[in-house]
Amino acid sequence: MPRSIVPVNLADRLSQFSELWSQKTVATLNDYEIKLAKVKGEFVWHTHPDTDELFLVVSGRLTIQLREADVVLEPGELFVVPRGVEHCPVATEETAILLCEPAGTLNTGDAGGPLTRATETLD
Amino acid sequence: MPRSIVPVNLADRLSQFSELWSQKTVATLNDYEIKLAKVKGEFVWHTHPDTDELFLVVSGRLTIQLREADVVLEPGELFVVPRGVEHCPVATEETAILLCEPAGTLNTGDAGGPLTRATETLD
Repeated sequence: MPRSIVPVNLADRLSQFSELWSQKTVATLNDYEIKLAKVKGEFVWHTHPDTDELFLVVSGRLTIQLREADVVLEPGELFVVPRGVEHCPVATEETAILLCEPAGTLNTGDAGGPLTRATETLD
Repeated sequence: MPRSIVPVNLADRLSQFSELWSQKTVATLNDYEIKLAKVKGEFVWHTHPDTDELFLVVSGRLTIQLREADVVLEPGELFVVPRGVEHCPVATEETAILLCEPAGTLNTGDAGGPLTRATETLD
């Protein structure tokens, strides 16, 4: 009987933190990070000049505001914000999201400011 | 009122195909692809020498057999097979998975054989 490796359970990892707008790395894929975050309210308009950014909603409802359109994501829906495209996530209820992007990508992109957070690793 | 962009709904995309072990690209992230597949039965032992490979189970139950351990994934669970690690996915029931890896990664890795399929794009 082979030994068993425990995978990453998203609900379990989400139960390990409560702070908002703080990205937690749960896995790495080459030089990319798979991250979880809880969000509520409006973030800040920003751009990632060097990378696309994947959003997948786990629970709740996320609107990714773009300058020319809104993208509304329900659980089980994903959207990739292309590199260089200004965006501002907003959620009226607490929403859990999975992100995938290169390690080192800053949450506030080129905007900086008080919502900037270093990514932490959840074990 | 801004116009609305429709995101990728995983359940909707999964309803668009029925074939097993055939990866469908639903989004791209830089030079990576986000893919969906339906699997049942045992795949083939293989290795991706140049890349890690992310598996996230959407529905069903997937066992990723490694030579030294098994990883059992329920819905909402993910695992990254490190590059160079031999693995063989198996599912006793039909299981829907999301994969993320660099574009051009072959489903059968270094093993080749009759289960090799080109990745198709789902619009």
